[in-house]
Amino acid sequence: MELTILGCHSATPRESKQTTAQVLNVGGHLFLIDCGEGTQIQLRKAKIKFSRIKHIFISHLHGDHFYGLVGLISTFRLLGRATPLHIYGPKGIKEIITLQLKYANSWTDYPLHFTELDETHSRFLFEDSVVKVSTIPLDHRIYTNGFLFETQPGLRKINKEATAPLDLAPEDYQKLQTGADIVLSTGEKIKNEHLTQEPMAVKRYAFCSDTGYYEPIIPHIRGVDLLYHEATFLDAHIDLAENTKHSTVKQAATIAQKAGVKKLMIGHYSSRYKEKEAFLKEGKTIFEPIVLSEDLKRISI
Amino acid sequence: MELTILGCHSATPRESKQTTAQVLNVGGHLFLIDCGEGTQIQLRKAKIKFSRIKHIFISHLHGDHFYGLVGLISTFRLLGRATPLHIYGPKGIKEIITLQLKYANSWTDYPLHFTELDETHSRFLFEDSVVKVSTIPLDHRIYTNGFLFETQPGLRKINKEATAPLDLAPEDYQKLQTGADIVLSTGEKIKNEHLTQEPMAVKRYAFCSDTGYYEPIIPHIRGVDLLYHEATFLDAHIDLAENTKHSTVKQAATIAQKAGVKKLMIGHYSSRYKEKEAFLKEGKTIFEPIVLSEDLKRISI
Repeated sequence: MELTILGCHSATPRESKQTTAQVLNVGGHLFLIDCGEGTQIQLRKAKIKFSRIKHIFISHLHGDHFYGLVGLISTFRLLGRATPLHIYGPKGIKEIITLQLKYANSWTDYPLHFTELDETHSRFLFEDSVVKVSTIPLDHRIYTNGFLFETQPGLRKINKEATAPLDLAPEDYQKLQTGADIVLSTGEKIKNEHLTQEPMAVKRYAFCSDTGYYEPIIPHIRGVDLLYHEATFLDAHIDLAENTKHSTVKQAATIAQKAGVKKLMIGHYSSRYKEKEAFLKEGKTIFEPIVLSEDLKRISI
Repeated sequence: MELTILGCHSATPRESKQTTAQVLNVGGHLFLIDCGEGTQIQLRKAKIKFSRIKHIFISHLHGDHFYGLVGLISTFRLLGRATPLHIYGPKGIKEIITLQLKYANSWTDYPLHFTELDETHSRFLFEDSVVKVSTIPLDHRIYTNGFLFETQPGLRKINKEATAPLDLAPEDYQKLQTGADIVLSTGEKIKNEHLTQEPMAVKRYAFCSDTGYYEPIIPHIRGVDLLYHEATFLDAHIDLAENTKHSTVKQAATIAQKAGVKKLMIGHYSSRYKEKEAFLKEGKTIFEPIVLSEDLKRISI
């Protein structure tokens, strides 16, 4: 997995501060997560090929998380896209997008599939042989979901040195990959663990923005390799965090610590803070490692 | 009048090519004309004070002319705006904006007034003592208006040297400013022209984007000080211009020539052209002076 931060600031785009959008590269997919105004320009800056984006996940219908979506959909059309686009987001997103396409008399030539969400429990969104995606219900002023991306448990790796002398049939190899023992033509039974190695470890990325401090997310994100959790405020503004259903960095770090995640990335910074070192300092009193998100930063998971 | 070009490219915003938006500074007003995605960032780059924008004119509901509007409206709210905002645009614009504010549960704290247009003739939009604004119906794939901005005929200027010896009453000065002759207490009548000078000349700016070649606009724009007319294509792509109801630069220049305007500014360039000199060269075979619009360029009218 590789994550590219396109924008990580709250509220309003500025010359050097883009609102939320991320691209997760996993198993051949480029998943776009949120799509603030100007995301299509950030995609160009990050040199991400538009045609490889086939799934877009929108956390909620505040502008700083989706006002770039309709423009991106229009640009896909102007670029001659033919492949389907799947959009997952709160109920209402289809109405908002299609109303604008209707008045522009500019329907897409490519299929546009909406999956509208209104569940308050976690639900499955997408799965193939490589990855699965599900929602993480969050606690914000309007209906909001985070998203959990998990690679599928891979097949066990064949130990070629061990299998070479055995003259196995192709179906034996398939059995070994799934973890089964095999029986040779001689009747001898060989345990799987002698012929294979552990598969690639499952990787998990959890995206949680925007939300107040909300412990019910912990079971969904327990032990993830990377947790992105919003940290709009420093501790001095905990009252603002409570009033607006956002989090302080200490709250984000507390969630990370209680969920035993491997790494925390914070973002969605309020524009009131001129520099971000104080976020790291406050967060590290509770949890490490923490990394700061920055526009156009890439991080391997 | 001073015009600031925020964006002048067609179709899709790119890192160095912004879609249509302009600010006209006239008589204390900052009129925003069209509002492509990212306009709020361009406003910041141009150091234009958000709170001074009270009227926004939207030509049509294609994304490259209004996808930045909902974000700007939201940012006004986040900045604590209290003064009313007036939006003039095609029927449908109110539904599009209010639907998004509804789903965001983020109604503006300031009054938002929509004037929705569906007339196919020119109509009056706004007037005060300094300026008046009306529509210029254009010929595009969807319902589209240009806009004509005209300063009001000013008051005649008092010639202080001539009036000083006369001991006039305040109402005499008011009469002189409006062009009337006056009668002194001695019964002597003095012609206005001996005591005043011509008022400031009326200034007129016409914004015409997007449109095919359309001679019915000529009566509305005759003799304007500056005509902005779209010139999406060069002559080699006149077939594309016709199919998409856009103009070539030669067509824009022909309109300027037939309307006897004082200066033509072109823009809305297709991204297929790497440099813009060819637009000037082709246009100047028909009309001069022509200036190229460029993002963040300022021009006095």
